[in-house]
Amino acid sequence: MEGSAPAAPLRTRVCIIGSGPAAHTADLKPVLFEGSMANGVAAGGQLTTTTVVENFPGFPAGIMGGDLMKRCRDQSQRFGTRILTETVAAVDLSARPFRVASDKSTTVLADAVIVATGAVARRLHFPGSDAYWNHGISACAVCDGPAPIFRDRPLAVVGGGDSAMEESSFLTKYGSRVYIVHRRSTFRASKIMQDRVLRNPKIQVVWNSVVVEAFGGADGGGSGGRRWAGVKVKNLVSGEVKDLQVALFIAIGDTPATLFLGGQLELDSPAGYVVTKPGSTHTSVKGVFAAGDVQDKKYRQAITAAGSGCMAALDAEHYLQEVGVGAQEGKCDDRVSD
Amino acid sequence: MEGSAPAAPLRTRVCIIGSGPAAHTADLKPVLFEGSMANGVAAGGQLTTTTVVENFPGFPAGIMGGDLMKRCRDQSQRFGTRILTETVAAVDLSARPFRVASDKSTTVLADAVIVATGAVARRLHFPGSDAYWNHGISACAVCDGPAPIFRDRPLAVVGGGDSAMEESSFLTKYGSRVYIVHRRSTFRASKIMQDRVLRNPKIQVVWNSVVVEAFGGADGGGSGGRRWAGVKVKNLVSGEVKDLQVALFIAIGDTPATLFLGGQLELDSPAGYVVTKPGSTHTSVKGVFAAGDVQDKKYRQAITAAGSGCMAALDAEHYLQEVGVGAQEGKCDDRVSD
Repeated sequence: MEGSAPAAPLRTRVCIIGSGPAAHTADLKPVLFEGSMANGVAAGGQLTTTTVVENFPGFPAGIMGGDLMKRCRDQSQRFGTRILTETVAAVDLSARPFRVASDKSTTVLADAVIVATGAVARRLHFPGSDAYWNHGISACAVCDGPAPIFRDRPLAVVGGGDSAMEESSFLTKYGSRVYIVHRRSTFRASKIMQDRVLRNPKIQVVWNSVVVEAFGGADGGGSGGRRWAGVKVKNLVSGEVKDLQVALFIAIGDTPATLFLGGQLELDSPAGYVVTKPGSTHTSVKGVFAAGDVQDKKYRQAITAAGSGCMAALDAEHYLQEVGVGAQEGKCDDRVSD
Repeated sequence: MEGSAPAAPLRTRVCIIGSGPAAHTADLKPVLFEGSMANGVAAGGQLTTTTVVENFPGFPAGIMGGDLMKRCRDQSQRFGTRILTETVAAVDLSARPFRVASDKSTTVLADAVIVATGAVARRLHFPGSDAYWNHGISACAVCDGPAPIFRDRPLAVVGGGDSAMEESSFLTKYGSRVYIVHRRSTFRASKIMQDRVLRNPKIQVVWNSVVVEAFGGADGGGSGGRRWAGVKVKNLVSGEVKDLQVALFIAIGDTPATLFLGGQLELDSPAGYVVTKPGSTHTSVKGVFAAGDVQDKKYRQAITAAGSGCMAALDAEHYLQEVGVGAQEGKCDDRVSD
């Protein structure tokens, strides 16, 4: 049943690729590739790049993103997950069992695969963009906008799509005013979203412009000894550069981590998210399931990812029963009687 | 804008009805009706009727169902949720704002409503059915089946639908054998599910039969001083009664708590779950959203309910922005920067 591979492959019923809430909730005594700085993010996923997670249910005082992921990882291990700290380089979804190969020498043969590789917020690169990341520059208005430090301060959003429109409207609840910095003279957002933004007296659009630099104030403190102060914005038509004393929210989309799939699963275009049957985790290939941000461009929250990870586990278990592989214990059961 | 009501109604943007993971994850500084023994279950929902929750992510050592819900409730309160311990008796979804009335004198007028009232596993009533509930009788094979006390013991499932078939197959991984007790001479389950069960050498069907009594052993211990021993099963055709020394799993479906809606939302037939647009929490009435088990007959796990509660919060926020009510802070944001 197993093919002959150069370095004896691992045989498993379920192979999970990913390291975030979706990956660790899909709990089936699987082999799990958590990656090694896959997509530039540490194992644990995007939550490891954040600070306090305020609203993952069950943690009334909040929890640090890294701590939450450590707890989820411990939980997976306790339930028998075999975690490999290697990054998946390629998969072969054309044969059964599926073949999953890492960038080291490990090959896993699996009856079912759960893709939970997440997405990474697209970033802009300009002088200061790294130094002030999470210290004045954020990729998530919904997450960071309500923070006290942004109250009644001028804010700016970069982008021209629906997300940028929605996040700008959202931020007007907190900031004193909201600029939208957009490199073109028109938005690609839907008409209704544009209208709402353009009607909003707290929003001002800075057309044909890009952020060229982030700068700190002279008063010390903050990140690396320099407190965040604002950004320099360049008008691409006139060449004029002006300072905006704003916190910056990047809303130019996310990049789902789907390149390694080599086009073997249906992706949406042009963003590249894995297409799942709505209300389930089924992908275009029977036996392959997707959970979390890699298949969700709409909700993208830790708890929704965890929920879909559990759905993937149940869908995979159902599939394995159906094809007669038999399922395993340790799925996302809520309750164990005493 | 507000109608005149007998006892001055509370005005809110979002009213949540429910008390479980879905209700407390839909976090929008809302008014939340948690009910008072609504549907025969304490506030907190079905998790309050369980013992250890093993696999809600973030709790590597497991957590008691009641404790988890207390933590979620504390979290909601910290974020400004106003919790009313009253049961909703009626809603009027035909007017804007929506009107939600409790069985006491409280009326809430809300721009958006989130229905998260859950479902209750259907129970059978026979002598001993209450005394041995959760001590030999379970409504959830997926949850309780893997528990050590059921290993290599004979088990029985009551039911004749797809759930009963699936749970029986699942339980063969743990029990020494699995009986299916069914009151008719045919299953209503799908052909493929029936075939799988009937082919399984570990499963034996007890046709035309019902459970008439649960009995304990003479050795003391266990619930109420009497240890669980098994059930008496009566053949409805022959009248014969025989003992089965089994733990019993009830798989005759759930009853979603939707009666109070008075037919104002589209429900599926005949089970009565709220119909949502797949992959979202939108119901048949714009501005009314549904999350958790009340709209999910497929996954029904605490973590999937929590995930859909967060989706409902985001869907409601989006809706409020769209209709110009403006959203509120405190939604299910994952991250707050420092």
